[in-house]
Amino acid sequence: MASEWPASGEDSLIARHFKPLATDPGAFALDDDAAVLKAEGHDIVVTTDAIVEGVHFLPDDPPDTVARKALRVNLSDLAAKGAVPAGFVLTLALRAVDESWLQAFARGLGQDAKLYGCPLLGGDTVSTPGPLMVSVTAFGRVAEGRMVHRRGASPGDRIFVTGMIGDAALGLDILKGGPVAAALAGDAAAGSMLVARYRVPEPRNALASAVCDFASAAMDVSDGLAGDLTKLCMASGVSAEVVAARLPKSAAATHLLARGAASVEALISGGDDYEILCTVPEDRCAAFVVAAEKTGVAVSVIGTIVAGPGTARFLDAQGREIALERRSYSHF
Amino acid sequence: MASEWPASGEDSLIARHFKPLATDPGAFALDDDAAVLKAEGHDIVVTTDAIVEGVHFLPDDPPDTVARKALRVNLSDLAAKGAVPAGFVLTLALRAVDESWLQAFARGLGQDAKLYGCPLLGGDTVSTPGPLMVSVTAFGRVAEGRMVHRRGASPGDRIFVTGMIGDAALGLDILKGGPVAAALAGDAAAGSMLVARYRVPEPRNALASAVCDFASAAMDVSDGLAGDLTKLCMASGVSAEVVAARLPKSAAATHLLARGAASVEALISGGDDYEILCTVPEDRCAAFVVAAEKTGVAVSVIGTIVAGPGTARFLDAQGREIALERRSYSHF
Repeated sequence: MASEWPASGEDSLIARHFKPLATDPGAFALDDDAAVLKAEGHDIVVTTDAIVEGVHFLPDDPPDTVARKALRVNLSDLAAKGAVPAGFVLTLALRAVDESWLQAFARGLGQDAKLYGCPLLGGDTVSTPGPLMVSVTAFGRVAEGRMVHRRGASPGDRIFVTGMIGDAALGLDILKGGPVAAALAGDAAAGSMLVARYRVPEPRNALASAVCDFASAAMDVSDGLAGDLTKLCMASGVSAEVVAARLPKSAAATHLLARGAASVEALISGGDDYEILCTVPEDRCAAFVVAAEKTGVAVSVIGTIVAGPGTARFLDAQGREIALERRSYSHF
Repeated sequence: MASEWPASGEDSLIARHFKPLATDPGAFALDDDAAVLKAEGHDIVVTTDAIVEGVHFLPDDPPDTVARKALRVNLSDLAAKGAVPAGFVLTLALRAVDESWLQAFARGLGQDAKLYGCPLLGGDTVSTPGPLMVSVTAFGRVAEGRMVHRRGASPGDRIFVTGMIGDAALGLDILKGGPVAAALAGDAAAGSMLVARYRVPEPRNALASAVCDFASAAMDVSDGLAGDLTKLCMASGVSAEVVAARLPKSAAATHLLARGAASVEALISGGDDYEILCTVPEDRCAAFVVAAEKTGVAVSVIGTIVAGPGTARFLDAQGREIALERRSYSHF
């Protein structure tokens, strides 16, 4: 922790860059070996996600976006579980100390810590000969016994997603030199938007309270909607039917689909969306939509939970199932 | 979390190897995106430490010892803060899935999780082209406001350490082909003991309650006693005088010192001890020693806190300060 950003070189590294982020009294200004997290009568929700250079972000990505992504992918988990952010710890594996990189990294991290009310509680910096890696463990508070689970969806529940699906996967395609950039035919604004969606997700923490109040099951979409919905179905012991035409898509994604430069499969299996996927009982949908509107987070009904063995079917305009060769990103 | 060991390949990896370790009900059998940690009326103490192949452990180290070390370095922090282990989350960055390696890793981890009452709550597996890395964030419970800090030491307090100092650094020297092995002149048992001390530290969690009850300040010794004592002194606004002859040393370390194959400096700056360093007011020392004896953890008085600017002096048999070129391991 604090401490375990060890020894001289690292101690001053921390003092320079990360102390300003440790605004919670339980962080002890990063001067101790551990932090104290107060539950304040709530359950503590714990989530952990790491991002690796070359895998989750690209070597040339701006350092502030790397920091934001590392924190936001965890904030997204807290939001989907209905929890309010309480703080996080950071492990940073670095090849070398690059002051300007660290300064930009810490600035981006600090801005997001403030924006989402999620202060730095401690961390560890280690040297590595390998790729840069950022591991975050984030904490949230939720009323006792009220964390929203993957299990809990029932036949008849409506399936909601927030925001837009697939933009991040299209942005990654651009960064990797894939066909998307050419298909955008010089529309630089659309390209920038898609790349930004890959680099800096928008966790839906504003919706956490509504998810907690109305959702029967929820998770965040991180590895592709198709695979993640399948996981939710398996945990709940139900199946899902999604109408592909109802998937919320950006204008850029719609354009690329129309031109044949992207497929529905690419949008729903690509990952990195960091939107909330949740199911809501039919008779609570109207109230959920009203609550969501108050937060400014767009929500879309994309389908219905049905009885079944834990599968997720995506249907085209003719009601036929779209065959999917892959459903999600897998590391192995 | 659980979830974020994503997608098919990883899901079955987790099911096979790590579910049996998720014995806490708050882990939801690793089937959800987050875990729930109950504070049970206590403060939650949070600590995080990562270990990197080639830096904190060696590529040929047995996988079960890698797992044990990753967890134990965090347990050691909890012990020094006076906290009782409550659980941990794990981030594992792997180059590839090696079933036999993972099986041994999970077995070692599971045995220690059980031994120390610290169940797995969740985690993340990611692929990396670089060195293997294991990052653990561990949680403990301590009575509200009772975490033991680095700050708090006062002039007159006695300085204690647990166990033996320097064995792990000597063990690392052996593994790196340094001069220690030759100086042991074929004493294989001594060599094995030193290597084991490097690979698998013995966190002093049994002593946590006594530390909480009697210590004015405490931390664990991870980066070298000299540097870590300096940190405690700086946090407390005091200085320290240690009598080098009083440092608890194994027979092997004593032998190597006598032969000139190791120096006091090597023992106190080498790191990886994972012993508790604490200060105890003079009038509470007797009671602390009695409490420690009941736990079976050896404690030694090595010196005294004095007024001063935050320095730690190590004195030889003639009372002269031993000059130290380095005080601790630094990553950068």
